Amino acid sequence: MATLTKNDIKITRTETSKISSIDFNNLAFGQVFSDHMLTCDYKDGKWHKPEVVPYGPITLDPSSKIFHYGQSIFEGMKAYKDNNGDRFLFRPMDNVKRLNLSAKRLAIPELPEDYFMEGLKALLDVDQDWIPTNEGSSLYIRPYVFATGNGFHASPADAYKFIIATAPSGAYFSGKVNVLIEEQYSRSANGGVGFAKAGGNYAGQFYPTQLAKDKGYQQVIWTDDTTHEYIEEAGAMNVFVRINDTLLTSPVSDRILDGITRKSILQLAEAEGIKTEVRKVKVSELVEASKNGSLKEMFGAGTAAVISPISGFGFRGDDFEIPEQDQSFASQLKNRIVAIQTNKAEDPFGWRVKL
Amino acid sequence: MATLTKNDIKITRTETSKISSIDFNNLAFGQVFSDHMLTCDYKDGKWHKPEVVPYGPITLDPSSKIFHYGQSIFEGMKAYKDNNGDRFLFRPMDNVKRLNLSAKRLAIPELPEDYFMEGLKALLDVDQDWIPTNEGSSLYIRPYVFATGNGFHASPADAYKFIIATAPSGAYFSGKVNVLIEEQYSRSANGGVGFAKAGGNYAGQFYPTQLAKDKGYQQVIWTDDTTHEYIEEAGAMNVFVRINDTLLTSPVSDRILDGITRKSILQLAEAEGIKTEVRKVKVSELVEASKNGSLKEMFGAGTAAVISPISGFGFRGDDFEIPEQDQSFASQLKNRIVAIQTNKAEDPFGWRVKL
Repeated sequence: MATLTKNDIKITRTETSKISSIDFNNLAFGQVFSDHMLTCDYKDGKWHKPEVVPYGPITLDPSSKIFHYGQSIFEGMKAYKDNNGDRFLFRPMDNVKRLNLSAKRLAIPELPEDYFMEGLKALLDVDQDWIPTNEGSSLYIRPYVFATGNGFHASPADAYKFIIATAPSGAYFSGKVNVLIEEQYSRSANGGVGFAKAGGNYAGQFYPTQLAKDKGYQQVIWTDDTTHEYIEEAGAMNVFVRINDTLLTSPVSDRILDGITRKSILQLAEAEGIKTEVRKVKVSELVEASKNGSLKEMFGAGTAAVISPISGFGFRGDDFEIPEQDQSFASQLKNRIVAIQTNKAEDPFGWRVKL
Repeated sequence: MATLTKNDIKITRTETSKISSIDFNNLAFGQVFSDHMLTCDYKDGKWHKPEVVPYGPITLDPSSKIFHYGQSIFEGMKAYKDNNGDRFLFRPMDNVKRLNLSAKRLAIPELPEDYFMEGLKALLDVDQDWIPTNEGSSLYIRPYVFATGNGFHASPADAYKFIIATAPSGAYFSGKVNVLIEEQYSRSANGGVGFAKAGGNYAGQFYPTQLAKDKGYQQVIWTDDTTHEYIEEAGAMNVFVRINDTLLTSPVSDRILDGITRKSILQLAEAEGIKTEVRKVKVSELVEASKNGSLKEMFGAGTAAVISPISGFGFRGDDFEIPEQDQSFASQLKNRIVAIQTNKAEDPFGWRVKL
C-alpha cells in the first residue's frame, strides 16, 4: 500500500472560526478546542483515509460498544511554536507506536502509522494559528480511538473511530502537588491493561482520587496491587524520587505506563550528569529517607503536566513534607526538556520534529 | 423529594415502529433494538426526570469524557412474558442497587432508585409487544450510564446520561462452551474495579479471549492476578464447579462480580438439597478432580447466558474434558430458575416481579 502523505488528506474547513473568541492569555487545560479535527473510520475490516473536518458533534447508536464495553484508547501530545513561528512536535512516533500497543491490548485494530502522523500534520497545518506561544502554554493534542460498532454482545466492535482533537492549553497543575500513597485501592493488575492508555484505567482512579482530595491531597501514588509495598505511578504521571543525589524511578511493566516524558527525563538526567536508577522503590524506603533527610525531591512526569514537583506525601495518616531545594533536579530537568520542546535549545537526542 | 411513579414519566412515541420487520423466531443476542428507550440526564449537579423516547442516535462532543476516560457502567436484566401475556422481571432491585455500587466506584453520581425502576416500568409498558414469548428468548434489558461532560482533564465528568435500551434476544451461547484457564493475563486487581460492571472491565478481556478463541476455546476463566492459583470468574459469567455432589463457587470480592444469577443458584441449590460451598477453588484442585473423576460438572452463570454448561477446560497446554452427566446440576438448576423467571413455577423466594 502506498504511503499516505499529508497532501493526500481531504480538508473541509469550518465556515466560522472560533479563534477570535479565545483568550490565549488565560488558558485552562483541555477546555477549549481548535476549529478542526482529524477523523478516520475503521469499518468493513479496514481503516479508511483520514480527513480534516470542522470540530463538531459525533453521533452514535445507543448500542455503540464505547458506551458498554470500554474499548477506548488515547494518547497525549503537544505542539509548540517558537518565536519564528516554526512549529514542533516532541517524539511523535513514540505516541504513534504506543497507541498501537494500546490498540492491540484492547482488541482495537492497529492504525497505519502514516494515517496518524500525516493526518496530524495536515490538521496542524490547518489549525496552526491555534498553537499558543505564551510561556507554559502549548497546543495539547489528543489522538484517540473508540469502538463505534453496535450490539450488546460482550465482544470487540466491528467499527471504530480515530480522532485527533486539539486544545490550546495552559498548565495541568498549578503549583506543587501533595500526594497520597494509596494502599487500599489499586490502579492495575498483573497481566492487566495498566501499561496501555486505556480509558478504563482512568475512570477507576477517580473515586480513590476523590477520597484523597477530600483529605487534602491532589493526586494518588498507586502501589502494586499484590503487596502495596512498592510505588508505581500516579495515574496521569510517572513518579521520580531523588534520594541524596540519585534519581530513582520504577521500571515500566504491564502495570505501569511507559511514559515518553519519563524516558526522556532518564536520558536527560544522564546527559546532565545526574545519577539515575531504574528500580522498584519501596514505600518504606521513602518514609525512611524522609525521616533521615535523604529524600530531597519527588516529582511526577507526563506529557500533560511535564514535570510536576511534589511537595509531600501522606502515608497511613502521617504526612511527610519534602523540603524546597535550591538546586532541584525537577527545575533543572524541566527547563532542559521544555527548552528542547520549544526550540530554545539544541536537541542532541533528535526528539524534536519540525512541522 | 416525592417519589416518581411510572405515570409521571413523559412518553414520546415513535412514528414508525420497526416491530413488523423483526423475526422473533430467529433472534440473535442483543442485535435488534426495541422502538423506545428510557433516557435520563445528569447535569447541574442532579439527575433530571427520565423520559421514554424513540430509540435513536446520541450526539456527543468529541471531548465527551466517555471517549477518553472510560466512565461507564451497565447492568443486564431480562423481561419475560408468560402465556397469559403477563410480564415479569427477575430481582430487578438487585440490579438497581448494583448499578449504584458500580456508580460509586466509578465516581458517577448515584441514580435515584425510582428513576430506574419506574422508568423501566414505563418503558416496558410502551414496548410490551417486544418481549418475546418463544422458549429460550426474552427481552434483554440494558441499563447503562456514561460520562457526557466535556474536557480533556482526567477527572470525573460533570454530566452523565442514563439510558435503558432493550433488545429481544435469543441465547447468548449456542451449546456448551470450552474454556481456557488463563495464567498470563488478568481481569482485575485487588482494590480495583472488578466487582463493578464497568465498561473497562470488558474491553480488557477481549484480547486474551481472542487468543483463547484462536486456540479453540470460547471463553476464558480468569485467575487471581497475584498467584494465578485460584479461579475467579469468566468475565461475562460467574463459575460453578461440581466436585462429586458438591457445588462450589468462589466468594465474591473486589475482583469478582456479585452476580444475581450466581446468588440465585446458590439459594436454589440449597432448596433443592444440593450441597454448596462458597470458597476459593484452586486450579490444581480442578485438574486433580478431573484426573480422578470427581469433577462432574462446570458451568457459567449470568443474566445473559443464564446457566451455560462447560464441556471442558484447557490449562497449560492440556485439555480436560468434562463428561456428560445424566442428572446434571446445570440442567436441574437452569430449569428451576427459568421456570421461576417465566412464571411457570411458584416463586418461594419472592424474586419475580410482575409488571
